[in-house]
Amino acid sequence: MLNVRKDFPILTKVHNGHPLVYLDNAATTQKPYQVIHAIVDLLEHHNGNPHRGAHILSVEASVAYDEAREAVCRFINAAHTEEVIFVRNATEGMNLITRSYAETHLKKGDKIVIPISEHHANLVTWQRVCRVTGAELVYMYLDETGHFTEDDFAKIDGKTKIVSFAGISNVLGMKVPAKKLIEKAHAVGAVAIYDGAQSVPHMKVDVQDLDCDFMVFSGHKMMGSAGTGVIYGKRDLLNDMEPFLLGGDMIEYVQEQTTTFNVLPFKFEAGTENVEGAVALHAAIDYLNTLGWDAIEAHEHELVVRALAGMKNVPHLHIIGSTDPDEKTGVIAFTLDGVHPHDVATILDSYGIAIRSGHHCAQPFGAHIHAEASNRISFYIYNTVDEVDYFIEKLKLVRKQMGYAD
Amino acid sequence: MLNVRKDFPILTKVHNGHPLVYLDNAATTQKPYQVIHAIVDLLEHHNGNPHRGAHILSVEASVAYDEAREAVCRFINAAHTEEVIFVRNATEGMNLITRSYAETHLKKGDKIVIPISEHHANLVTWQRVCRVTGAELVYMYLDETGHFTEDDFAKIDGKTKIVSFAGISNVLGMKVPAKKLIEKAHAVGAVAIYDGAQSVPHMKVDVQDLDCDFMVFSGHKMMGSAGTGVIYGKRDLLNDMEPFLLGGDMIEYVQEQTTTFNVLPFKFEAGTENVEGAVALHAAIDYLNTLGWDAIEAHEHELVVRALAGMKNVPHLHIIGSTDPDEKTGVIAFTLDGVHPHDVATILDSYGIAIRSGHHCAQPFGAHIHAEASNRISFYIYNTVDEVDYFIEKLKLVRKQMGYAD
Repeated sequence: MLNVRKDFPILTKVHNGHPLVYLDNAATTQKPYQVIHAIVDLLEHHNGNPHRGAHILSVEASVAYDEAREAVCRFINAAHTEEVIFVRNATEGMNLITRSYAETHLKKGDKIVIPISEHHANLVTWQRVCRVTGAELVYMYLDETGHFTEDDFAKIDGKTKIVSFAGISNVLGMKVPAKKLIEKAHAVGAVAIYDGAQSVPHMKVDVQDLDCDFMVFSGHKMMGSAGTGVIYGKRDLLNDMEPFLLGGDMIEYVQEQTTTFNVLPFKFEAGTENVEGAVALHAAIDYLNTLGWDAIEAHEHELVVRALAGMKNVPHLHIIGSTDPDEKTGVIAFTLDGVHPHDVATILDSYGIAIRSGHHCAQPFGAHIHAEASNRISFYIYNTVDEVDYFIEKLKLVRKQMGYAD
Repeated sequence: MLNVRKDFPILTKVHNGHPLVYLDNAATTQKPYQVIHAIVDLLEHHNGNPHRGAHILSVEASVAYDEAREAVCRFINAAHTEEVIFVRNATEGMNLITRSYAETHLKKGDKIVIPISEHHANLVTWQRVCRVTGAELVYMYLDETGHFTEDDFAKIDGKTKIVSFAGISNVLGMKVPAKKLIEKAHAVGAVAIYDGAQSVPHMKVDVQDLDCDFMVFSGHKMMGSAGTGVIYGKRDLLNDMEPFLLGGDMIEYVQEQTTTFNVLPFKFEAGTENVEGAVALHAAIDYLNTLGWDAIEAHEHELVVRALAGMKNVPHLHIIGSTDPDEKTGVIAFTLDGVHPHDVATILDSYGIAIRSGHHCAQPFGAHIHAEASNRISFYIYNTVDEVDYFIEKLKLVRKQMGYAD
C-alpha cells in the first residue's frame, strides 16, 4: 500500500466525532501539500499575466504556464505540446469539441455513437450537436454487467462520424475496450473521443498508443485545481477547427470587422490564463509520477478487492456492473434494497464516511438499468484497507437503522 | 493613502537588485494573505464537490460556494442571487452572452454598437455574432481625447439591438458615460452590456443603479483567482436564454434524446464548480469592503494626480486619451517618441518596474489612433506615491539609454 496520507492535510479532519473517510474521489479529489504549496508559491512570488508583458512577473508566469503544458504533454505522451489545450475542466473540453469540431463537421444523416453509461458532459453535448446539425445520437447499451457487446460494436458503421466514450465509466468503474472502439471508429472514418475524466487520474493514458483523436480530463479529479482541465487533440484536427472562446491572446490580427487567429495552442485559450490552476496540475502530475503507475494501480486494486469481498457479505446490496475485481477500477456503485441512496449516504456521513448518492450525472444510464439513483464509493491513492473495512462495517448497519431485520 | 502592503507577500520581491514596483494591475492584480489563506483553508479543510453529495465535504463546499455568490450579489447590488453566474472570467462571460443571447436574438439588419476602444473580448465576440446572424457591428469612434461625441450617441438608433461597452477602457483609463449609454440603449429597445473588468475592481458598480442588462468582470483583476469571473444578468433575460456550456449540474432531467435544464443560476454553470476561485473572490470582496470605496478611490486618484504631473515633465511622452486627472482612473497608456514600447518596458524592468507594453488587447483602437503599440501603467490599492516617483525617475532615463539627448 502507498503511504501518502501525511501529505493530505484534509485527511486529519474529524466529522461528527469520527475521522473523515473520504470515498467520493470520482467527484473530486483532495490535494496534497505539494499542490497547495505550488499554488501559494505562484501567488506569493511569481503571479503575473502570462504572454502579455516584458516584465519579470509576466515572464515568470509564462514560464510556469508553459512548463505545466509540457508536463501534461509528457504525462499523456502527446506528440506535440501545442496539442495540449488548457480549459476549465473536462466538461468545457467536451463543449469545445462538440461546438468547434462536431457542429461544423457533421450533417443530417451522420451518426454519433456513445455508450449509454456516459456522463452528461459526453451526452447532453451531443444532443445539442444533433439538434444543430440533424445528426443522430445512437447508444451502445452494453450487457447487464456493463460489457460491450457485438451489437454495440456493430453500431459503429459507415454513417458514423463520431465515437465518444469515457475510458472508465464513473458509474460502472470498468475500463472500456478503448483501443477496439478507436480502431472501429477509424475503420469507418469516424473521429474517436476519449473522455479521460475518470481514467487519467488512475492509470497510464497514452494518447499516441490509444490513437484517440481527442481526449479530455479535469485537474480537480487528480489532485489539481477545479479551475484547470485539458483537451488533447491531434494537431491537424485542432488546426482545422474554429476557435471556441474569443478574446485576448487567441487572436493574431484584429481589425474592425475581421480577425485572424493565433496558432495552436493559443487559438483555444482566450482571456487571461489560469496560471495557478496550471501549476497545481503540474504539481499533481509530478506527485503521481513520483509514486508511479504500478504502485498506484496496485494500491487501488487492493482496495477494490477488499471492498468487493466485503460488499458481497452485505445483505440486500447490489453492485452495478461487473463484480470481478479484475474488471473494476476504484469506482463501485451500488444499491441497497429498501433504502434510498440519499439515506445511505446520510447515515454513513454520520459516521464520518463520505460517499456519493444520486444519478452520478448519468441519468439515461440510471433509467436504462432501472436504478435512477444509487450510491457510489470511489478510491484514490490515500484511501486505506482500514477505511474500506470501516465502510463495510457501517454499511451493514444502514438497513438496521432504517428498521429492517437484516 | 492606504496602508496595505504588509498584506501582499509578492510586494517584498526583489528583481535585478531593485524592489519590485508592480504597475501592471490592469492585466492582473496581486493577492493579499487573506485571499491566499481562503484558498488554502478551503483546500485543507473543506474541499468537496458542491451540490452533489450528502456528505460533510460536499455540504461545506456548497455553503462556501453559495456564500460567495451572495457576497457578489451584495457587492454589485444585484436584485437576486440567481442573477449572479460564476464563469471563468470576463472573457468567458462575453462569450456566453454573445452566444446564448445575441446569436439567438439578433438578425440581419440589426446593429451592435460598441466604442472603438473596446477590449478584444468585447469586440471579436461581436464579429462572430455578425457573421452568424447578419447583424452589423458599428463603432463609436470617440474624440481625440477619448470622449464620447454626439455622433457617437447618435449611432444608437432604432436598428440597434445591442450596446456594449467597458465601464472603464483598459487603454484610455476613462470612465465612460455609462448611465447615458444605457438610457440611450433602452430608449431604442436595445440591450445594454457593461464590461466591468476594469471598473468593478476600482469603483462602486451598482447594477440596479446603472440598470445595465448584463455585466461581466474577472476575479483576478480584483485580487481573486484567475479561475473565477462573474456574469450579472437581469433574471428575465437569463431565463429567456439558451444554456451555454452543457454537462453536469446544469440539467434537470436527461433522457436519451432530450434534456430539460436546471433553474438559474445553475443552468449556466456546467461541470464541477470552481469553489476555490469562488472563495478567493469572496475574500477579495471582503477585503475591498473593509477598505471602503471612498478610501480606495481617493488612494488611486492621488496616484493618478502624481503620475500625470510627473509624466508631463518627461520629454517626448504622449498620453493616450485625457490628461485631466479628474477624468482618468488608475490606467495611463502612453508612447515615448523613438522608443518601441517593448524597449521601454524592458528597460524599466531592469529597474524592477513592471509595466505593460503592446496592444492591450485593443488592436482596432491602436490602429484608429495610430499607436499600434504603447505602454501602460496601472495602479491598485497597494501602489505608493514613492513608486510613482521612482517610475517617473527611471522613465526619464529610457530615451537617454536608447542614445537620445533628451
